[in-house]
Amino acid sequence: MSGRRTTRLTPDQRREQLVGIGLEMLADRSLDELSTDEVARRAGISRGLLFHYFDSKRDFYRAVVRAECDRFTAATEPDGSLEPVAWMRAFIAGFVAYVLEHRQVYLALVRGAAGSHPAVTDIVGTTRETVARRVHDGRRRLGMPDAPQAELATRAWMAFAEEAVTTWPVERPGAREELCAFIESSLVNLLGLLDRPQVLTPR
Amino acid sequence: MSGRRTTRLTPDQRREQLVGIGLEMLADRSLDELSTDEVARRAGISRGLLFHYFDSKRDFYRAVVRAECDRFTAATEPDGSLEPVAWMRAFIAGFVAYVLEHRQVYLALVRGAAGSHPAVTDIVGTTRETVARRVHDGRRRLGMPDAPQAELATRAWMAFAEEAVTTWPVERPGAREELCAFIESSLVNLLGLLDRPQVLTPR
Repeated sequence: MSGRRTTRLTPDQRREQLVGIGLEMLADRSLDELSTDEVARRAGISRGLLFHYFDSKRDFYRAVVRAECDRFTAATEPDGSLEPVAWMRAFIAGFVAYVLEHRQVYLALVRGAAGSHPAVTDIVGTTRETVARRVHDGRRRLGMPDAPQAELATRAWMAFAEEAVTTWPVERPGAREELCAFIESSLVNLLGLLDRPQVLTPR
Repeated sequence: MSGRRTTRLTPDQRREQLVGIGLEMLADRSLDELSTDEVARRAGISRGLLFHYFDSKRDFYRAVVRAECDRFTAATEPDGSLEPVAWMRAFIAGFVAYVLEHRQVYLALVRGAAGSHPAVTDIVGTTRETVARRVHDGRRRLGMPDAPQAELATRAWMAFAEEAVTTWPVERPGAREELCAFIESSLVNLLGLLDRPQVLTPR
């Protein structure tokens, strides 16, 4: 035995620590590039011990992705007691803040390569459903009429919002507020167009 | 030697044949799952001969992706002599038709995993730029005013349109026309909102 002092963690604390390291590492690499060897090394434990806490690499990947998706879901859940407009704005602000602060992870997981990683497709899919239902809930709170294609329009609006948040130049002062206003404007327009379609007209 | 008749192909014809087989195979698998062994087998040639026409697996992948991206670019190029509204509608119809008919390949390449495949990121990126410039061109033809965030809004609208086309239920009669009208409506709303922002209001 070495003289190094090792901290005794409960199994739950250890799992949490390993998942936390995985989340940190995901910030600059894809899920496929997430090496369990390195996770173990960073935690100061053996690879064997890591697999004492997780059944397989796949199991570890799923735990990391689930943790990230939980963060995303929590960040976009407004206080239920808010008035409809404030509720929807809190949702948008939460969405924008989350995507800006977790840009790399978001792109890697929710959209990019890992979104289609077979080991985690179901988790990412469920998360997207949850967030889409939230937008839908917001529409109802706002009194927007239900339309047959409302669900689809919601998902398409989410793709729009994702693209806008990940490409908007946010360095400038006031840019984040402009971005939120832009997303709000697009929500009003896109989810509103279900009951008033528009056609192109030459100017 | 078997009695099978082998056709003599010129190097260009052979390359085209191999790329064509790759494109067909991409319809039900990702770029990573595209085996050059199987491509060679389907073409009735040896793996070695395939690498006579392509420097590497990466080189072959790039040729396949370039061919697909060229198809996409061609499918979304309207006749330049059309009036602005007809031009924009031709673009939308071409986009919808392409994505519907190449749904799997489109998801795998332009959006999904392979879009972030390091070997082809530049090709996919350039294609997205070309199509975005086309939408931008359409906006100008329609006389929509230029706005500082126009380019970004265009890309976000493309994400919206992609999501709508890949999730719209198109089996019903008339569904494709409705989809085109929905995409047109979203274009009018989303690219129009740059000069008239809207805010949420309780109903």
